[in-house]
Amino acid sequence: MQLRVGMVGYAFMGAAHSQAWRTVNRVFDLPARARMALICGRDAGKVSEAADRLGWDASTTDWRDLVTRDDIDVVDVCTPGDSHAEIALAALAAGKHVLCEKPLANTVSEARAMAAAAAAAQAVGVRSMCGFNYRRVPAVAMMRQLIADGRLGVVRHVRATYLQDWIVDPQFPLVWRLQKDRAGSGALGDIGAHIIDLTQFVTGQLISGVSAVTETFVRERPLPAGSSGLAASVDGDGHHPSVGPVTVDDAAVFVARLDGGALATYEASRFATGRKNALRVEINGSLGSVVFDLERLNELEFYDATRPTAEQGFSRILVTEGEHPYMSAWWPPGHIIGYEHSFTHQMRDFIEAVATGVDPTPSFSDALQVQLVLDAVTRSAELGSSWADVEPALVTATA
Amino acid sequence: MQLRVGMVGYAFMGAAHSQAWRTVNRVFDLPARARMALICGRDAGKVSEAADRLGWDASTTDWRDLVTRDDIDVVDVCTPGDSHAEIALAALAAGKHVLCEKPLANTVSEARAMAAAAAAAQAVGVRSMCGFNYRRVPAVAMMRQLIADGRLGVVRHVRATYLQDWIVDPQFPLVWRLQKDRAGSGALGDIGAHIIDLTQFVTGQLISGVSAVTETFVRERPLPAGSSGLAASVDGDGHHPSVGPVTVDDAAVFVARLDGGALATYEASRFATGRKNALRVEINGSLGSVVFDLERLNELEFYDATRPTAEQGFSRILVTEGEHPYMSAWWPPGHIIGYEHSFTHQMRDFIEAVATGVDPTPSFSDALQVQLVLDAVTRSAELGSSWADVEPALVTATA
Amino acid sequence: MQLRVGMVGYAFMGAAHSQAWRTVNRVFDLPARARMALICGRDAGKVSEAADRLGWDASTTDWRDLVTRDDIDVVDVCTPGDSHAEIALAALAAGKHVLCEKPLANTVSEARAMAAAAAAAQAVGVRSMCGFNYRRVPAVAMMRQLIADGRLGVVRHVRATYLQDWIVDPQFPLVWRLQKDRAGSGALGDIGAHIIDLTQFVTGQLISGVSAVTETFVRERPLPAGSSGLAASVDGDGHHPSVGPVTVDDAAVFVARLDGGALATYEASRFATGRKNALRVEINGSLGSVVFDLERLNELEFYDATRPTAEQGFSRILVTEGEHPYMSAWWPPGHIIGYEHSFTHQMRDFIEAVATGVDPTPSFSDALQVQLVLDAVTRSAELGSSWADVEPALVTATA
Amino acid sequence: MQLRVGMVGYAFMGAAHSQAWRTVNRVFDLPARARMALICGRDAGKVSEAADRLGWDASTTDWRDLVTRDDIDVVDVCTPGDSHAEIALAALAAGKHVLCEKPLANTVSEARAMAAAAAAAQAVGVRSMCGFNYRRVPAVAMMRQLIADGRLGVVRHVRATYLQDWIVDPQFPLVWRLQKDRAGSGALGDIGAHIIDLTQFVTGQLISGVSAVTETFVRERPLPAGSSGLAASVDGDGHHPSVGPVTVDDAAVFVARLDGGALATYEASRFATGRKNALRVEINGSLGSVVFDLERLNELEFYDATRPTAEQGFSRILVTEGEHPYMSAWWPPGHIIGYEHSFTHQMRDFIEAVATGVDPTPSFSDALQVQLVLDAVTRSAELGSSWADVEPALVTATA
Repeated sequence: MQLRVGMVGYAFMGAAHSQAWRTVNRVFDLPARARMALICGRDAGKVSEAADRLGWDASTTDWRDLVTRDDIDVVDVCTPGDSHAEIALAALAAGKHVLCEKPLANTVSEARAMAAAAAAAQAVGVRSMCGFNYRRVPAVAMMRQLIADGRLGVVRHVRATYLQDWIVDPQFPLVWRLQKDRAGSGALGDIGAHIIDLTQFVTGQLISGVSAVTETFVRERPLPAGSSGLAASVDGDGHHPSVGPVTVDDAAVFVARLDGGALATYEASRFATGRKNALRVEINGSLGSVVFDLERLNELEFYDATRPTAEQGFSRILVTEGEHPYMSAWWPPGHIIGYEHSFTHQMRDFIEAVATGVDPTPSFSDALQVQLVLDAVTRSAELGSSWADVEPALVTATA
Repeated sequence: MQLRVGMVGYAFMGAAHSQAWRTVNRVFDLPARARMALICGRDAGKVSEAADRLGWDASTTDWRDLVTRDDIDVVDVCTPGDSHAEIALAALAAGKHVLCEKPLANTVSEARAMAAAAAAAQAVGVRSMCGFNYRRVPAVAMMRQLIADGRLGVVRHVRATYLQDWIVDPQFPLVWRLQKDRAGSGALGDIGAHIIDLTQFVTGQLISGVSAVTETFVRERPLPAGSSGLAASVDGDGHHPSVGPVTVDDAAVFVARLDGGALATYEASRFATGRKNALRVEINGSLGSVVFDLERLNELEFYDATRPTAEQGFSRILVTEGEHPYMSAWWPPGHIIGYEHSFTHQMRDFIEAVATGVDPTPSFSDALQVQLVLDAVTRSAELGSSWADVEPALVTATA
Repeated sequence: MQLRVGMVGYAFMGAAHSQAWRTVNRVFDLPARARMALICGRDAGKVSEAADRLGWDASTTDWRDLVTRDDIDVVDVCTPGDSHAEIALAALAAGKHVLCEKPLANTVSEARAMAAAAAAAQAVGVRSMCGFNYRRVPAVAMMRQLIADGRLGVVRHVRATYLQDWIVDPQFPLVWRLQKDRAGSGALGDIGAHIIDLTQFVTGQLISGVSAVTETFVRERPLPAGSSGLAASVDGDGHHPSVGPVTVDDAAVFVARLDGGALATYEASRFATGRKNALRVEINGSLGSVVFDLERLNELEFYDATRPTAEQGFSRILVTEGEHPYMSAWWPPGHIIGYEHSFTHQMRDFIEAVATGVDPTPSFSDALQVQLVLDAVTRSAELGSSWADVEPALVTATA
Repeated sequence: MQLRVGMVGYAFMGAAHSQAWRTVNRVFDLPARARMALICGRDAGKVSEAADRLGWDASTTDWRDLVTRDDIDVVDVCTPGDSHAEIALAALAAGKHVLCEKPLANTVSEARAMAAAAAAAQAVGVRSMCGFNYRRVPAVAMMRQLIADGRLGVVRHVRATYLQDWIVDPQFPLVWRLQKDRAGSGALGDIGAHIIDLTQFVTGQLISGVSAVTETFVRERPLPAGSSGLAASVDGDGHHPSVGPVTVDDAAVFVARLDGGALATYEASRFATGRKNALRVEINGSLGSVVFDLERLNELEFYDATRPTAEQGFSRILVTEGEHPYMSAWWPPGHIIGYEHSFTHQMRDFIEAVATGVDPTPSFSDALQVQLVLDAVTRSAELGSSWADVEPALVTATA
């Protein structure tokens, strides 16, 4: 069985997804094979070049054609958040399985519409998934399993940060990720969304309310000479015609309650000097604790309080054994994997779900739940940190 | 010159202070020598035994006598928080220099009265200090110096946790630290106070407002057979006549703004399984970052973003060189010090200040500022995490 | 320009090389493209299946045909060490560029013949390289650059270990890696060779003599039901017809002198319980030190003793910046790479060298130098740890 | 019961011992109390000042008087190694209990005489002990216990380094520790002795033979203006009348076999830039491994290979629980201790042994065994790294 993939977007996420589509069937034994059929971008020359470099059979500039073509089975949405809803809805309407990058959308209403459409499509065997790829890091999957198995007892504390520092320099230009109309929000939606999803995933609990503070430390930045995500840079002669306003948050911090009774703190920032991709999560339960750090993603620290007191300690588990999630397909123990492997694992699970006719997770509904938390954070911050409840995402399939 | 010390209390803090008074003049060359003159406790037999064991010249059960005797120069208050105000005010009134354990008091009004009395006493050469001993950990002092020297640039983020786990077991008894009338608050005042003071100290900024959540996970506990701080335990036959209500917080989390523009997160908990004494502080500035962990108190991590990009990294500085604060008095580089040394350094600074006629820090006014933050956290938590401003401690000397 | 690759062997190294050949041109912009043309193995069915799974155009069981075919430009030798010499010599004789896995051969005489042949081939534009892939880990390349730039001053100490634990269990079967006739030696040649090459590479110095001890802790093991490298396992019913002798070392330790004046210790073991792939190297110089750990291969610790004393410390550099070797082709800072990327980088350098007509490193002569050290270690161990000089590899091109 | 201590020497070790004698009875409940009765040094003024500062009742310049006085029960020898034998032998002859700093002596013959005298004295109830204080670090004691309990199974590997960097600068002066007639040897006897003793202690095995290389990197150094151990420094105007030869090793590396079948590597160096007091030991057994680092002496890493594969990892045990050796006397869990506490624990065990009439360890005979290893290392290094057997220390009590 072959799944012909059409991907929209070819920047950072597009490259990461390409590497994963290219690799997944070489490493995992799966009931279907992905074919990198078609890639779509706005600039014909650049997307053609990308197709050649990344290994896609063909390229196009017309995403509406891509999502409706008969020779495409899967649509992979890797564009900025402002176009997710339109593309994904069209693809679902055309009966394509959809993998959509996170955050699902830039607004709750868009996300709600997408979740409803996905629920409707599901009824006719069309699958959809949101790309919270970190769920597929083996150590994260293991963390979830330990908690599900009761190894942590009652979860008391969640402590989650996602820290980066790529815009500390006030001269870093005003790329699309700093513009609300394109990105929806700043650190909050870009990286905060990851720790919201990840902590809900591993604990099996939902955030029920938040109190938040957000900040934009640098409110005006040089306009980019030509921006393409993180790679944007000052033009050759250092001259910028003008500056523009930063319309998203640089950082967001919030306290939260989870519906299972835990207290939580969250922080997402692009101003944490020295922290490059520091997604760190610690969870304390009545019987144990776990700690994860994305910059050392092959490791999981596990504290088992049921062991004899004198021997208790945080164990640094190298999550590279055949017994660990996803790892039997890779190298011998101790031979580490990298960031990109989380995407390969995501594609593995997506392909398997589609080929075997089950719904992959996280669903669009799961992703809507994240969107509702993002929305609560924004509301709380706007209302002077007052408590904002998070409503549960009750999704009804679109008629 | 000799300073005759009278200490009230002889449990955990009393033992730690005794070790420090005993050691300080053996290690540091100071203008005055402390004499461990008198120790006070409620039980005559036990305090006499403590005097003998800890090395005090004499013991008494009458703190009112202790604070007024002519042969006492310094009163060291090591009792639970509910008696700090009464003892310290009496000592100041009697013209004694006072070192008072933290938190300064159990309420803002008490703390305010103490700060006012201290300010008045200061005018006649009587010195006072609050025992936030972690300011004297060499790595903490170095952290403050780096920030004061501008090495971090503009401080953007403060991330502070103080995590312990000694009451995770619901059968751990209801010791005085879990009773509001004795301890004032729970994790918040006991360990949260430390990170509030420490972060204000090292950044040179004050917390201007907070939004908080607190929780008591275990609301009822066995009554202790006989409690003495952290050492309380179940009685021999495992039998307890009854249980009692826990009247303080088990954990407190809050977001905050500092008056210099930084965002901050704080967490104090006694339910963080596996974390024994995990006071951890990270501060990110526009030019660099620092990280401190009390369980590895001889180390400071420093990230200097002014170095060449390819060489930037968190440097693990072993703060054991003669060039580091306090360390020239101790052992060769790499020969680490422990928790108790922070008290020895505190006594060093206190003795030097008293002997040379200057005011030691943190003053009672500084400690009142911490109390005001604790109060704001409590108010915010009680009002559903609504934002609570922290007023500045404007202290007027008591007439 | 296209380079048509023929690979011999498809087990662990074959899979790793395949992933690298498949990826290299998708990530790096190079003057030639590798085509995965032909893969060779002894079992027609299995190699055909491997070709399909790993993505090779075709398969064969005849390596002699592979190395002489007109439609093959590059021969990649991934077999056990006992066949390296025969295959590589034939390939060079046929005018093929050769990439040969390490160790270059099982004996010095074979390695010498190969180095001579490579030198002769080089004169007519045929390139050869030995697969010491860890040279291409970005942190290792950075380590070399720091030392070459004089940042460590005079190198005083080299401390190198490569520790694994996959045969601690005495019931682990007698796979080919434990048989001298196939593998040449045990831990010494398999993993010891890596640290010998790596330390000579980064210091720019050669080992001039050694004193060694080797040991085989478990001298007899069950015969495997069917062995294929590390993946060998006990057969289904736990029954083995018989046992056989382990004819290689389980561990090798040696002290050494380098020709630049440094003292060194080396240890290679498959019996270091808990160490999975722990290649660790520390180098101390008069001006600084570096530390590398393959299990955290995205990090390099660098101590710069020219900094102010109070700020000196081992800096944990996350070697993921665009400024770091090879990394501009990959993901944003902090998004880590894995073990397999060292092979991708190796293929990158190999392709570039071949396409631009320069000799890649490490050459067969460099690999012969490693072989001479392995030989000295073996001689010293056999002669009761007496000192064994390492002769320099003076290679003359075969007539 | 009171033990009146007379201490000879008051430099680095004298200060460390003083802190321990002063503290031990304040913290531990013991059957005897140490009295700091008399301190001895060569300069009357300086030793008197030291007595006052360190808290000794009296001082003297006549060690022969000290060791024979009726009012002294214990002689504590803290001088450089060249005077250990003379002082300790005289003290034993006078019936005093003796605590002698390590290494026991500068030569095997001296050490043998001391061990014989100690054995004879033991017969009449006189106790002796050598000051390998690191045995009393709680994590080290725990390491020994784990191995003794069989938790590591058969010990396969010992990996021990003791690295410092205080003489990397060639202008560091020629202090007594760099002179063979005073110190016996350099890094080898000073710090190498510690790792020899420690690894023999924790494994319960003896080193049976070694192959060694030693080196003196800087062979000539400025004469000190006036040397006192590690504190020596260049005189005020930076002028030195002359230079002198360094007559000891700067570094020593050796491989070894232990009599239980383990392979071992040892390294002692004063030229490991960035390593301040880096005594690190790793031991791998068939069932588990342990790792210790003196710069983080409150921690022990323990790998238990009997746990489920997926949960195996090195556990960072914070050795600060009441269940851990020595720790119930100190602070609550997580409140760390320092370097000096190893001496306090040593005095605790010494006092208890003397008071209860048992022989403390390490005995002079144990220390002689270390001396025999040092001697074998020196011999091997002098004979071009040829293997040197270590004879067992068969001690006969002096008639």
